[in-house]
Amino acid sequence: MPELAYVNGTFLPIEKAMVPVEDRGYQFGDAVYEYIASYNGRLFFLEAHLERLSRSLNALSFPAISIEKIRETVNELFQKAALPRAGIYIQISRGVAPRNHAFPEPAGPQIVMTVRKVHEVDPEVRQKGAVAITQKDFRWGRCDIKTVQILANVLAKQKAVDSGAHDAIFVAENGVVREATSSNVFIVEKGTLVTHPLTANILPGITRAVVLNCAKELQIAAAERFYGTKELYGAEEVFLTGTTTEVLPVVTIDGKPIAVGRVGPVTRQLGDAVRRKCCEPDT
Amino acid sequence: MPELAYVNGTFLPIEKAMVPVEDRGYQFGDAVYEYIASYNGRLFFLEAHLERLSRSLNALSFPAISIEKIRETVNELFQKAALPRAGIYIQISRGVAPRNHAFPEPAGPQIVMTVRKVHEVDPEVRQKGAVAITQKDFRWGRCDIKTVQILANVLAKQKAVDSGAHDAIFVAENGVVREATSSNVFIVEKGTLVTHPLTANILPGITRAVVLNCAKELQIAAAERFYGTKELYGAEEVFLTGTTTEVLPVVTIDGKPIAVGRVGPVTRQLGDAVRRKCCEPDT
Repeated sequence: MPELAYVNGTFLPIEKAMVPVEDRGYQFGDAVYEYIASYNGRLFFLEAHLERLSRSLNALSFPAISIEKIRETVNELFQKAALPRAGIYIQISRGVAPRNHAFPEPAGPQIVMTVRKVHEVDPEVRQKGAVAITQKDFRWGRCDIKTVQILANVLAKQKAVDSGAHDAIFVAENGVVREATSSNVFIVEKGTLVTHPLTANILPGITRAVVLNCAKELQIAAAERFYGTKELYGAEEVFLTGTTTEVLPVVTIDGKPIAVGRVGPVTRQLGDAVRRKCCEPDT
Repeated sequence: MPELAYVNGTFLPIEKAMVPVEDRGYQFGDAVYEYIASYNGRLFFLEAHLERLSRSLNALSFPAISIEKIRETVNELFQKAALPRAGIYIQISRGVAPRNHAFPEPAGPQIVMTVRKVHEVDPEVRQKGAVAITQKDFRWGRCDIKTVQILANVLAKQKAVDSGAHDAIFVAENGVVREATSSNVFIVEKGTLVTHPLTANILPGITRAVVLNCAKELQIAAAERFYGTKELYGAEEVFLTGTTTEVLPVVTIDGKPIAVGRVGPVTRQLGDAVRRKCCEPDT
């Protein structure tokens, strides 16, 4: 059974996997998620994803959930699917209750998972570098929590696609560059890697952290600090990081080439390093 | 069958009403909703709700949906339920598709409705006036679209409940008073009704519009303009408006009494006027 779902204890085909209409994830966006990809039969940084899931659940005061049980289920789903390049989606909502804004009492979490083949980035885009646009950030103020409230991301991604670009980069009202619709953003400036620091306005990306670790190992200077669109457009290199994004070079933003408009050496070096990490034992 | 659901053509008990886990409303908050209440067997301002629903669908570039069909279904659901005080919840999502941020092609909308008894405001709160808190607005930038992305509203409402208050009022970074978690906010200042103008940051409330119309009929001066927390705390009267909220007096905010901390005459007058409208023929 290659593609498969799990709903509260039951494994079943994805098209038969259902949730009640009064699931709070459906009516209020009151749910969190994670997405984990596998390489050569191994799940990439599963522990880091479970740790972030746990942080998301706590940030929203969800009832206690056994992360051990989640880990077991993820592994079981992964084994059953037996896909070499699997993408496991986990969604946990506060539960099912008659519609009312305040938290229901007692609340029981609703746990849903799916496993599908990873929706890969177009190899040509990966090879030549991606085109991006910028978009005023109109998301909510807690993008550090990985909730299903991502309609702004959907709309920005669609705007990018409509304009022939691969992705959109959110820029704050004050000009600070934040992140893309489902990945973090890095620039290279005077040889130094720069990325937005961890605040409530960006997701603490797993691949973002892996890239920062790789940079340390490779003795590439790195700084987590605010930077604006001027630095973005004027960067030596720009790339995106994420679970399926991995390290994706960006060579054009808002119609302007980044440097000479070709994939740069730091991006390549870090991309290779992250690829190697995918095959290392889990941390 | 008093409480009932409808899912894509089928009427069924609410606890049996299900949606696929890959419904975009569930995974992306990619869905809009309306909530309509009945009084004495009539749905309050059904046409205004359907018009707003249509606007929400267009704002998100949803595929064309027949509002006529939605109206028919709402009426059928309402008849079947035969509840004197019914609350009809309509949710329309962009459809079901393997998870991917950009719009799926072809996309078919998913239509879900439920009818339940209205969850009434506590009569004592309505009589004596409500206690509210303020909360920095951390919602997304398109609160004018009635989407299911309302987790910030959920969290603010819960914070209010936890502190013994009825509701939370969102205040912008710059101090402008916006709206409450599921209702608009009005103040009375020097005898004039003041409320936030229609922008992307507040919902164009149906009851808000009804109140403005009533004010005109009653020759109460009214202004749609920005105002801050200083004017909120110093107001002669404050009230909230919404479908189940109706006109709800607020007598204490952040622990400070509004004027003498009692329900004011303008609030009462408008509350009575709106109540009378509930029994008038639909506009």
